[in-house]
Amino acid sequence: MTVELICVGTELLLGNTVNTNAAFLSEQCAMLGLSMYYQSVVGDNPGRLEGLLQAAKGRSDIIILSGGLGPTQDDLTKETAAAVMGKKLVEDSKAREGIQQFMAKRGREITENNWKQAMVPEGCKVLYNPNGTAPGIIIEDGDTCMVLLPGPPNELIPMFEEQVYPYLHNLQPEVICSRMVKLCGIGESAAETEILDLIEGQQNPTVAPYAKTGEVHLRITAKAESEDAAYALIGPMEEELQRRFGSLVYTDDPQVTLEMAIAKLLEGRQLTVTTAESCTGGLLAGRLINVPGISSYFKEGHITYSNEAKEKILGVSHDTLERYGAVSAQTAEEMAKGGARAAGADICVAITGIAGPEGGTEEKPVGLVYISCWCKGRILTQKNLYTGSRSKIREYSVASALTLLRQAILEEGNTQDSQ
Amino acid sequence: MTVELICVGTELLLGNTVNTNAAFLSEQCAMLGLSMYYQSVVGDNPGRLEGLLQAAKGRSDIIILSGGLGPTQDDLTKETAAAVMGKKLVEDSKAREGIQQFMAKRGREITENNWKQAMVPEGCKVLYNPNGTAPGIIIEDGDTCMVLLPGPPNELIPMFEEQVYPYLHNLQPEVICSRMVKLCGIGESAAETEILDLIEGQQNPTVAPYAKTGEVHLRITAKAESEDAAYALIGPMEEELQRRFGSLVYTDDPQVTLEMAIAKLLEGRQLTVTTAESCTGGLLAGRLINVPGISSYFKEGHITYSNEAKEKILGVSHDTLERYGAVSAQTAEEMAKGGARAAGADICVAITGIAGPEGGTEEKPVGLVYISCWCKGRILTQKNLYTGSRSKIREYSVASALTLLRQAILEEGNTQDSQ
Repeated sequence: MTVELICVGTELLLGNTVNTNAAFLSEQCAMLGLSMYYQSVVGDNPGRLEGLLQAAKGRSDIIILSGGLGPTQDDLTKETAAAVMGKKLVEDSKAREGIQQFMAKRGREITENNWKQAMVPEGCKVLYNPNGTAPGIIIEDGDTCMVLLPGPPNELIPMFEEQVYPYLHNLQPEVICSRMVKLCGIGESAAETEILDLIEGQQNPTVAPYAKTGEVHLRITAKAESEDAAYALIGPMEEELQRRFGSLVYTDDPQVTLEMAIAKLLEGRQLTVTTAESCTGGLLAGRLINVPGISSYFKEGHITYSNEAKEKILGVSHDTLERYGAVSAQTAEEMAKGGARAAGADICVAITGIAGPEGGTEEKPVGLVYISCWCKGRILTQKNLYTGSRSKIREYSVASALTLLRQAILEEGNTQDSQ
Repeated sequence: MTVELICVGTELLLGNTVNTNAAFLSEQCAMLGLSMYYQSVVGDNPGRLEGLLQAAKGRSDIIILSGGLGPTQDDLTKETAAAVMGKKLVEDSKAREGIQQFMAKRGREITENNWKQAMVPEGCKVLYNPNGTAPGIIIEDGDTCMVLLPGPPNELIPMFEEQVYPYLHNLQPEVICSRMVKLCGIGESAAETEILDLIEGQQNPTVAPYAKTGEVHLRITAKAESEDAAYALIGPMEEELQRRFGSLVYTDDPQVTLEMAIAKLLEGRQLTVTTAESCTGGLLAGRLINVPGISSYFKEGHITYSNEAKEKILGVSHDTLERYGAVSAQTAEEMAKGGARAAGADICVAITGIAGPEGGTEEKPVGLVYISCWCKGRILTQKNLYTGSRSKIREYSVASALTLLRQAILEEGNTQDSQ
């Protein structure tokens, strides 16, 4: 089945807003095994929207619209979609009640135009919205299914996940299942090269790589007549990916992030960690503290941006800073060792580098970043040279530091196991 | 003049990538005063792309395409666009040379398909690309102008800013100028309410609000026959906005971020700052260290996630933690005071809160965040209640902390001035 997206909103045409809804909906449709060939953005203009809807109706089985369901006169997505599908608008009493409750709970006054949001195309399926006043709508006729969703992501995402995903899943003659294998410590093209033979000529299951900063996610998707049959197709492919990528795989759970996988390793081995950051200035600690409940394993971290702070807090020797400079393997290692001591932690990850745009030299260019991980007396140090903006260099440094931290914990585990 | 965007790339249809190019190009076109009515995304499929291009040619003066200029057989944007515009492809020797140099500099081998990227439509304007191997292209015929840009943002953005923006600016019969007034410490709807009378019925200049996390940016745009005339229209509007928003305006320079504005205030008043973060775990320091050259004013910061760390590093009293809890105004204030002392800084911003998703109670719900700023003996403390995910709560906390820091520096300045 084919699907297309139409996002309605002048704010998208003016560039006020990045269209994250399109990325979310596209990924969800891919997971559902729907083929998407077109996405469009149009303003709150009924004539142009109608033109797009007519074209979409002629070429796609499912049309998903987002935005333009608000209470104002400008919001005309529902009216236009109903007209294209030949439906009248009627009031839905449950939607009216929902609006009343939503506004009452927030102590906001209901204005006359709010009731416009309780009008729905006759015979449609209404998607009630606990997070806002605009209900979503599914309109069906023989050939086409139109899904109308509110624009704000905090309303659209739960409505899609809870109500639209199961609905579209049921429309499919086949079951689609997928699993995600997440890798760290390998680049996208290297990962792709490793599995080119699997990607080429693939039919069912398929493998698709998604590049993230410092990570590669591989989604395996299979279609079959039942869930069991789909997972039976996925299983051997997942084993093959596990075999090829080994310890680079940090999870096969789509909900688990790299920092969550690390937190679990820390918990399993009862290790505490701290950070000593220079150019990343707290972003590494910020990533670790993304994980709820990390507080048992991460108690404190230090941002030592100046040389004085590196000496005072971490005990980096003045001589090392003078002789090798603040951006050097020696300084990184002393930062890691001193950071662990200062915090009384089992592990410390230290980062020192030149994020630019100024401050680079021939010998130590912008993008040169040393990362060192001290783990109970053993030390791993990495020299990296990144390209890109100041913020890109810092983001990649954090991703590499997390990968190095994971490696250090895994090696520590192996050492323990072999003792 | 009208413009439309066509972004080419299967990765967008699969949701692997968020379409930030569309937001960037839309904002640039709005700044140029071009009217955008449509954006589309299509895969690397010449048939569907040709259909879209034909439709676009019939309704828009300028068509901007991004993506599909790579070296592989799949990349067919250039071939399809040239066919629609009735142009043959010919080799451009300067583009060929550029590819050679780009690859040589990186020590990468040139494969046969790289030379495909040196082929351009006859009679077109070639946009040379120092950041990649795909040159951009401008094809003109009587009525339509097509602009082809490479997909990677680090190639597309500089190419647009340096080569396409001036080109499109010249096509315009009128000059378009704009200025950005950036506000912190006020929400989008409150800001909009303040200027509703200016927005309603506006013609020239126009004011458009752009909501950012914890900030609102107001863009004033004017069209006129000359730059001087455009700025003459902008001037009184900018004064009016300055008058209405007063010290909430932190800059009128589009390049200046809130942390840059704060760094400038610190420099002007020769004040040093440090941070003491709990739930934001380094993200506030990370924002300050976004500013190149901040090292003179920010030397170190502390992440004190556990109660022990708050006591040990910041000297928060055990009694305070016991009596009021880690998330309280009292703890935030002791963190700020102790952080400044530990770092020997003039100012310390402290954050302590419940970012969730667990850990909330009736009395102290998820989203409760105290921010305290100690500045040379004076202290400002703020209680906030945010909604949203863990990461949203942390982002908003950081934005509020920067706003409070700015306020503290401004007040310190006033105190000094009045002494």
